[in-house]
Amino acid sequence: MIGNVIVGQSGGPTAVINSSLAGVYQTAKERGAQKVYGMLHGIKGLIDGLYVDLDTKIKTDMDIDLLKRTPSSFLGSCRYKLPEVTEDEEVYEKIFRQLNNLDVKYFFYIGGNDSMDTIKKLSDYAETKGSDIRFIGVPKTIDNDLAITDHTPGFGSAAKFIASTTKEIIRDGLVYDYPTISIVEIMGRNAGWLTAAAALARGEDCEGVDLIYLPEKVFDIDHFIDKVSDLAGQNRSLVIALSEGIKVADGRYVFELADHVDVVDAFGHKQLSGSAKFLSDKIAAELGVHTRDIEFSTLQRCAAHMSSRVDITEAYNVGGAAVKAAFEGDTGKVVVLKRISDDPYMCITEIADVHKIANIEKKVPLEWITDDDYVTQDMINYIHPLIQAELSPIMVDGLPRHLNINRDVH
Amino acid sequence: MIGNVIVGQSGGPTAVINSSLAGVYQTAKERGAQKVYGMLHGIKGLIDGLYVDLDTKIKTDMDIDLLKRTPSSFLGSCRYKLPEVTEDEEVYEKIFRQLNNLDVKYFFYIGGNDSMDTIKKLSDYAETKGSDIRFIGVPKTIDNDLAITDHTPGFGSAAKFIASTTKEIIRDGLVYDYPTISIVEIMGRNAGWLTAAAALARGEDCEGVDLIYLPEKVFDIDHFIDKVSDLAGQNRSLVIALSEGIKVADGRYVFELADHVDVVDAFGHKQLSGSAKFLSDKIAAELGVHTRDIEFSTLQRCAAHMSSRVDITEAYNVGGAAVKAAFEGDTGKVVVLKRISDDPYMCITEIADVHKIANIEKKVPLEWITDDDYVTQDMINYIHPLIQAELSPIMVDGLPRHLNINRDVH
Repeated sequence: MIGNVIVGQSGGPTAVINSSLAGVYQTAKERGAQKVYGMLHGIKGLIDGLYVDLDTKIKTDMDIDLLKRTPSSFLGSCRYKLPEVTEDEEVYEKIFRQLNNLDVKYFFYIGGNDSMDTIKKLSDYAETKGSDIRFIGVPKTIDNDLAITDHTPGFGSAAKFIASTTKEIIRDGLVYDYPTISIVEIMGRNAGWLTAAAALARGEDCEGVDLIYLPEKVFDIDHFIDKVSDLAGQNRSLVIALSEGIKVADGRYVFELADHVDVVDAFGHKQLSGSAKFLSDKIAAELGVHTRDIEFSTLQRCAAHMSSRVDITEAYNVGGAAVKAAFEGDTGKVVVLKRISDDPYMCITEIADVHKIANIEKKVPLEWITDDDYVTQDMINYIHPLIQAELSPIMVDGLPRHLNINRDVH
Repeated sequence: MIGNVIVGQSGGPTAVINSSLAGVYQTAKERGAQKVYGMLHGIKGLIDGLYVDLDTKIKTDMDIDLLKRTPSSFLGSCRYKLPEVTEDEEVYEKIFRQLNNLDVKYFFYIGGNDSMDTIKKLSDYAETKGSDIRFIGVPKTIDNDLAITDHTPGFGSAAKFIASTTKEIIRDGLVYDYPTISIVEIMGRNAGWLTAAAALARGEDCEGVDLIYLPEKVFDIDHFIDKVSDLAGQNRSLVIALSEGIKVADGRYVFELADHVDVVDAFGHKQLSGSAKFLSDKIAAELGVHTRDIEFSTLQRCAAHMSSRVDITEAYNVGGAAVKAAFEGDTGKVVVLKRISDDPYMCITEIADVHKIANIEKKVPLEWITDDDYVTQDMINYIHPLIQAELSPIMVDGLPRHLNINRDVH
């Protein structure tokens, strides 16, 4: 008797977070789990008693194949950080009551830093209470900013979308016989991994982006304008990739330099966008050239139709490895990816202590950023294997088909 | 002896404008044309003597297949409207001198309204001068706003990208357990065809967008806020599609209502964007809900990786039909698409008088827009066949491969 399993998804969606869910579900079933429950809207839903028996939602092999191709969190997500147990033990009691009611012995949480923090706190709490429930984290984030793991599931597909779409934008941007400056704004508040993926666009058939700016390095506006002026002066059209998180020397985000920007939304969250628009307007005004700004926005995290098969497969395997580890007795752990070699690319899963990964942000090494505003070949070699191969969408009636937890919504 | 052919591309790029180029090139070669020249950067390039022999750029069957999958204008584009011959005959003399020097007998121009105007003026001029050069227009525009033709090549692929990506955004947007309002801004200054394509997202596996706003109908902000307030009050997350060109009753664009918007760029062009951002900020402030705004921007016209095979094929056929018409003696004409039936979808090419198509803008019929801020089934039936089937990208090293006129750029 293996006992029951519960799995949840948390934080911002990715194109492959459901592939990890498929990996957890199928591996748990194959290894003899009685029930595999899904928390609806993560730990927050569980606290409110919201969960489903995944057998009622995933019924066929086709469902698994659709699930792997469905972007965003199939089970719904939440943004919720568990309080310290010393602050509010009641919430922990509620969670464990729910788990015990469902006879759950294995708890998997697919998410980013906050989710790994959840695994850390719940496994610590289980230990103090002598509970035998095992807690394992399954990492995901397009931002690739988790420590220890070579990279995170979700990053490769976002990088592939960014590189592919950047190629298309470059073709579009170089079409006129006068200089046009296109500035592409890419996600990544403090870590420039995703923005660096724009470098993959360059190749035999593509001129590539001309300049790349990551948040790890102070952004100097005068230097930027001079650089663009110099290149555009050669009658060249430019495509520039920059991170939403670039900051000037005094620590302000570039978009905060605009006169009229609303940096805080109705909930007090700083909205991280507008740097491309600000710089595009500035260049147009100062240099008198055509400019345009493009934000990839949500598309970069949900474009499942351009996902990387390497990423999809690794996301699935990370889910499977989490189940294997828990079933073999691990708890308070997180599955990480370890790259064995670049060429041929080989990568395995390992189990790491969740205390060593939670709440640590992995940034781009400064030596991978060049002085002429680009990234090094080392950076390109790092990302290159992660965008390889495809899991073609299953097209139905002209559109990619998804698995919806509310089947037959219309 | 058939004589020589020249072909150019003009106006904003699309995902399939190069498929029309392939259709012109291959059909002309098959029907015995000696040389097929390509104007570089359209008629403006030709005036400056810029052209290539396409045999030096398209060498293999693989090149043709890549060309069909390459977004944006392979030959480069221009934005140039020919002056009236009474204003400036010299430019006409220059063009005809170039054509005669190259022994060109057939002139094809792939483009939107301005390009059809170019065909009209050049064929009229040829007639007054007794020139035997034949001029045929090959329509393209993602906006689908050309008269006479059932639809324009380029529209179906943009519609497919919009519907596909909207499905992904809907999955992403419905993920949290509190209302999130996502507003997607779609191209189309005066015609709402592309925005209407967001309606295709709805299906068995997708809730669809909740509201659709086209520029053909006056946009009432108070009504909009009430509607969103009402729906969000039911604790629902919403995805709303709106055209960049929506206007309020006094004729101003919605984005012009923002305090700080720079509506005119360095060249005096009105920049048509920001309506989603404006409304998103307004809803967040007035209703206190989470909002986000997404602009598809350039992606909707260059996303060749999600092109419609129906569209690619029609674009090719329209190019081929133009050659056939010219070789059989037509001039001052444009190839149009005529839909024979919806189900099964059948569509043929016909030849129309360019005087009847140039400078006329086709808008969405008002009866296809519903009173509850959506579009009718007639509208959906109209677009549905145009997004069907795929021409899968040829993936090389993880990315869609294109044909670059400057081969081996790196």
